[in-house]
Amino acid sequence: MRAVDIIARKRDGHELTRDEIAAFVDGCTRGTIPDYQTAAWLMAIVCRGMTSQEATDLALAMAASGQTLDWSAVAPIVADKHSTGGVGDKTTLVVAPLVAAAGLPVAKMSGRGLSFTGGTLDKLESIPGFRVERTVDEMRAQVARIGVVIASQTRELAPADGLLYALRDATATVPSIPLIASSIMSKKLAAGANIIVLDVKVGLGAFMKTLAEARALARLMVQIGEGAGRPVRAVLAAMDQPLGNAIGNALEVEEAVQVLRGRGPRDLRDHCLLLGAHMLVLGGRAASLEDASRLAERTLSSGQALERLARCVEAQGGDTRVVSAPRAVLPSAREVRAVAAPRAGYLQALHAETLGLVAMRLGAGRERKGDPIDHGVGLLLHKKVGDEVQAGEPLATIHARDSESWTRASQEVLAACAIGDEPVPAPPLVWETL
Amino acid sequence: MRAVDIIARKRDGHELTRDEIAAFVDGCTRGTIPDYQTAAWLMAIVCRGMTSQEATDLALAMAASGQTLDWSAVAPIVADKHSTGGVGDKTTLVVAPLVAAAGLPVAKMSGRGLSFTGGTLDKLESIPGFRVERTVDEMRAQVARIGVVIASQTRELAPADGLLYALRDATATVPSIPLIASSIMSKKLAAGANIIVLDVKVGLGAFMKTLAEARALARLMVQIGEGAGRPVRAVLAAMDQPLGNAIGNALEVEEAVQVLRGRGPRDLRDHCLLLGAHMLVLGGRAASLEDASRLAERTLSSGQALERLARCVEAQGGDTRVVSAPRAVLPSAREVRAVAAPRAGYLQALHAETLGLVAMRLGAGRERKGDPIDHGVGLLLHKKVGDEVQAGEPLATIHARDSESWTRASQEVLAACAIGDEPVPAPPLVWETL
Repeated sequence: MRAVDIIARKRDGHELTRDEIAAFVDGCTRGTIPDYQTAAWLMAIVCRGMTSQEATDLALAMAASGQTLDWSAVAPIVADKHSTGGVGDKTTLVVAPLVAAAGLPVAKMSGRGLSFTGGTLDKLESIPGFRVERTVDEMRAQVARIGVVIASQTRELAPADGLLYALRDATATVPSIPLIASSIMSKKLAAGANIIVLDVKVGLGAFMKTLAEARALARLMVQIGEGAGRPVRAVLAAMDQPLGNAIGNALEVEEAVQVLRGRGPRDLRDHCLLLGAHMLVLGGRAASLEDASRLAERTLSSGQALERLARCVEAQGGDTRVVSAPRAVLPSAREVRAVAAPRAGYLQALHAETLGLVAMRLGAGRERKGDPIDHGVGLLLHKKVGDEVQAGEPLATIHARDSESWTRASQEVLAACAIGDEPVPAPPLVWETL
Repeated sequence: MRAVDIIARKRDGHELTRDEIAAFVDGCTRGTIPDYQTAAWLMAIVCRGMTSQEATDLALAMAASGQTLDWSAVAPIVADKHSTGGVGDKTTLVVAPLVAAAGLPVAKMSGRGLSFTGGTLDKLESIPGFRVERTVDEMRAQVARIGVVIASQTRELAPADGLLYALRDATATVPSIPLIASSIMSKKLAAGANIIVLDVKVGLGAFMKTLAEARALARLMVQIGEGAGRPVRAVLAAMDQPLGNAIGNALEVEEAVQVLRGRGPRDLRDHCLLLGAHMLVLGGRAASLEDASRLAERTLSSGQALERLARCVEAQGGDTRVVSAPRAVLPSAREVRAVAAPRAGYLQALHAETLGLVAMRLGAGRERKGDPIDHGVGLLLHKKVGDEVQAGEPLATIHARDSESWTRASQEVLAACAIGDEPVPAPPLVWETL
């Protein structure tokens, strides 16, 4: 099977066989297929597409390119969740301990934030002492003991995906539903959870800008999961405005703790409960979504979910006072002041991507891999879309490193807010579930 | 201008600007754009196509990547011809001296044969002593003195085309009308002739299998020529059966000499006269194709064309007896025997590609670059499509190295001939002219 013949078949729009895909991925991983052949293959996939069978075979081949985790010795069913990346998305910090406290172990491997999206690892690292690097044995022991671990994806997991992604980035072959779906799913399959809930973001602050694109991505990921024998549910969640009120690492941890204490913004709380409920149903802890929702709410209001976060923080070396007195232990910013509404009216839009980029430029995120992060900076929104606003009322509080960056951010925040005369309804949180 | 952005624009189906194309070709040539980016770009072009403006800009950029020849000090108008490659195509050996003898200088840079097609250089090298490697100064002096040179394309000509072609071969990005057209035209433009006649082959023994493909390629090459200020005419020539009767280097040289002596197969003679006439019209030596045809026929029947070939052979170090007693000087094969028709009827097909491959396997061509060639071997057809055949009558004479290869070839020749009961008309030589 020559690489050039496999490229030609995809170029001509044919469906590749499982063996052809496995041979190509194997050749990339071993380095026997040169990058230029892989690049041509990737562009042919971008242009000609892939069937769900091909995407499944690609995800499985990438998952098989390195270590694959197996949790069967730890628990009969282990759950995982994945968000395709949004602004203010701190759901993992709530959902993972919540689901674990409700009796379903969660093994979550996360990534770092890039561009306008925050990464769960960066958020956790704002907790003093918290270690995200765990060996497989440490993760296994932690799941066995407290039912939850949130750690950095090991480099041995789906190395073919890493190689292909680096090449895609340099060859303009990133935007392809089958390549995105198989990349995400290869890591999920290698990470070994039995059931997976996907939080597919759609809108101005997401990589998928339209519902049609997001639906295609979600459907394909569900099909890949089915093809690999792992039940998957996908929630298509609105990401036109940020989720919750906080954007920035320490601010988001604080907000997640608030939700676990039974408070916090309504949209964030509702979304966490929904994702948690789907995990509990798929994981067999509840017979219906209604039952699962009740179980999730009980677990939250009882304080068990908060307590589970504390145990997770402790197990990973973090300062557990973060759950009782977050402000006392989390880093903060020097210049903390509110931006006032320039006029009265109704907040009609809060452009999520713009606000994500504002937070990134304040220092909360990284433009390039490896850029340093300031965990204390960020934004706290006081109004969300649909809210009435008085002139002079605070729209958002900017947590900045200095007054110069505060000033720049304040202008950018105002540009990201649209205030109009007409009342608008609060937008939906979830478009549909697959 | 980042390479990845140019790739993305082509991926999304946009028309690239002249500057973008020039920057990409320049980056490839200098090595600042890595092969994997070039491979992705080429595949995007294969999948999304190029406008005629883009193909023109690509041809011009590749022509500008190295040395460009200028014949203006030698003659006001210098002509060139190019065949897209067929089986038994020895027209250059007839047309170049013919056109030169009719008063229009010809500077022809040729390539080697590959796969089932023969190369003009290989044919010429069957003439003892003939040297195809000429410096630019030698070519110039020869055109000034005798009006014709047929030489090897120098490596300094359109080096970007050579780099891109090597990558296309390895990345399944060869079959693309704009890439093929700009590759051919880049070399023609760099070679500096003022007018160009293209012999675009279509059919079973050509790279373009359908008239639609061949027409698209021809039209684009004509547009590229126009865009570059070089008048181009393209003849769409049938290549279902071989051109003429001889396939194989020495055999083809002998056949070309026969035509220049006023004999030889009718189809080859007619096609050479037509191509020559188009060159003479474009080059301003005749007012109409009719006038040009008469001029070409006169030049042929007067013996001036044959005499011009002799001068060309002499100038390039070859044995000039090739024009008077070709068999005495050309290499020959040991095992020369005819294949008999297995039945009576009418010859309905002579599969050109199969016969080209038979000749290649006899040793007349090369499967890979650099393979050695046996100039003496080949095939001589005694019947062409439309001819009546008696059982036992010779269909073709095989010139083989030994009896073993003769036997294999004889079976393959029989498989390439279809004899039926119904008479069929002789196929047309030319489908259309652009």
